[in-house]
Amino acid sequence: MKFRATVQITLRPSVLDPQGVAVRAGLQQMGYAQVEEVRVGKYVQLELEAETEEQARQQVDRISDQLLANPVIENYHFDLVAV
Amino acid sequence: MKFRATVQITLRPSVLDPQGVAVRAGLQQMGYAQVEEVRVGKYVQLELEAETEEQARQQVDRISDQLLANPVIENYHFDLVAV
Repeated sequence: MKFRATVQITLRPSVLDPQGVAVRAGLQQMGYAQVEEVRVGKYVQLELEAETEEQARQQVDRISDQLLANPVIENYHFDLVAV
Repeated sequence: MKFRATVQITLRPSVLDPQGVAVRAGLQQMGYAQVEEVRVGKYVQLELEAETEEQARQQVDRISDQLLANPVIENYHFDLVAV
């Protein structure tokens, strides 16, 4: 079976996000003063073959932990759908 | 009212994604041959003040179009929740 996973990777809340601060400053300059916080992360779409949804879930979890995210400073969260 | 928006920005399907190709090659080397396609995008969380959900939605749409995404090569999609 083929699965599509979407992985959202964000900095842990305790980690400073200079990119988010820069985006917020840009928005303020453009007149969007109502934006109070911005955090920037990564978004990865994977397509993979697996026999069961459970197997696909384990693989995406390992892939996220080992390659996509840095678990010291980042959290990740993913959704999985069969396609 | 305060709203939280999560914006997912991805390259248009017709645009080559060298970062995704590199991630896929890394996964193959690590033994994850079952991963067939990888696309890498951006993920932005915004917190903003707005009077109504409709107003918040319009603002996030404008912000995504003007600053966060490059509409020539990227698509965006967002979810909005009141917090």
